[in-house]
Amino acid sequence: MLGDPRMSAPVARHRLALDERRAQLLELGARLFSERAYDDVSIDDIAEAAGISKGLLYHYFGSKRAFYVATVRQAAQQLQLRTEPDASLPQPSRARAGLDGYLSFVEEHAAPYASLMRSGIGNDPEVAAIVDETRDAIVKRMMDELGLSEPRPVVRFALRSWIGLVEAASLDWLDRREVAREAVLQMLLESLYSTLVIASRLDPDAPISVGAPPQAVSDASAVIETGETERKARPRRR
Amino acid sequence: MLGDPRMSAPVARHRLALDERRAQLLELGARLFSERAYDDVSIDDIAEAAGISKGLLYHYFGSKRAFYVATVRQAAQQLQLRTEPDASLPQPSRARAGLDGYLSFVEEHAAPYASLMRSGIGNDPEVAAIVDETRDAIVKRMMDELGLSEPRPVVRFALRSWIGLVEAASLDWLDRREVAREAVLQMLLESLYSTLVIASRLDPDAPISVGAPPQAVSDASAVIETGETERKARPRRR
Repeated sequence: MLGDPRMSAPVARHRLALDERRAQLLELGARLFSERAYDDVSIDDIAEAAGISKGLLYHYFGSKRAFYVATVRQAAQQLQLRTEPDASLPQPSRARAGLDGYLSFVEEHAAPYASLMRSGIGNDPEVAAIVDETRDAIVKRMMDELGLSEPRPVVRFALRSWIGLVEAASLDWLDRREVAREAVLQMLLESLYSTLVIASRLDPDAPISVGAPPQAVSDASAVIETGETERKARPRRR
Repeated sequence: MLGDPRMSAPVARHRLALDERRAQLLELGARLFSERAYDDVSIDDIAEAAGISKGLLYHYFGSKRAFYVATVRQAAQQLQLRTEPDASLPQPSRARAGLDGYLSFVEEHAAPYASLMRSGIGNDPEVAAIVDETRDAIVKRMMDELGLSEPRPVVRFALRSWIGLVEAASLDWLDRREVAREAVLQMLLESLYSTLVIASRLDPDAPISVGAPPQAVSDASAVIETGETERKARPRRR
């Protein structure tokens, strides 16, 4: 609002460079906080890993806690971006693409995702609020996708519950890797479909068009991660 | 193993009294830890509330942390007891009774349940392990119920994911109270049914007999907690 970027190219370029630097620092922070406990990562560690001074880090983020919260907020934004509905796709391919984006995000950020969802990193009300707001935003988007602009408590409740299923499935998948990615995706998609069927039965006035069930996995070998006989018992992370 | 209780009645009676005292202290502790943050509850507070000396409390539990962990362990045992399958009931009444027990437990322990599931009380690996073991025990029992003694990774994965849905549904229900208890129960039951259908499609060799779908809610008024127009916006707990 204060300045048109086309009118002040050097300022905009400078801001972009700053934003980029900030994003890089947050990416680095997310990695450090996922590798070690929050209390074991010092501002000195972060500054050293980033190759900048402690003072500059404080200048960017104010405090270690604020830096940590900012890493979580950036990850939440990335997740929302990665799962954004692709309007060029028809349903249920659009839902599949969104779930595929979710699983890719989860795979790429396995350690911080697991830490955060198990509240392993920190136990901060601000962080919990970001996680909750992200869930709400995803549910809100799904309601919009369904064309539900009026509040439909039962549908919202069912979708919010399904997000819990997606998170538990993701954690179990990261932890054990017993089920193939394609089967995980298929399970989540079919389970979304059933959730919508259940919600539309419980709230028959909700204008949900459930459509045809998602196509089943055609290849049975895509279900189990490795042959069951040669499956290695992985120690579970606690 | 060391003594037959029938042979040493006074010792057994003494032990029972001790066990009862211990259980009462744990119940009290669960309440204190759910009302205030872990760090804000001192051993003095607990001893005072229990009307016993600090020394006796240490004698029973060793440390505040150990006492806290013991409260969580006792709650987990209670949950498992309350959701134990009632062999005298046919399916799906048995599943409904188990879910009913779960929801009653959740209602009665609303604050500690929410704190624990949001990791609001403490962020302890031992506590996280108890929560995880409880989930695993419930899934194991469900697998037994289905007659699956051999490992069926996909079925286990699907049931474990469904537990995540149950937890998210419970938290949302406690938080907002927008959906009637009967509708929550029905949604969980139908969603369990769909989960088993999905699992049996993904693992067609699993000897799951899915049976008839659970009966739908007959009374539509049992779905929304209060009339939508007069529904009060509740502030969400963070």
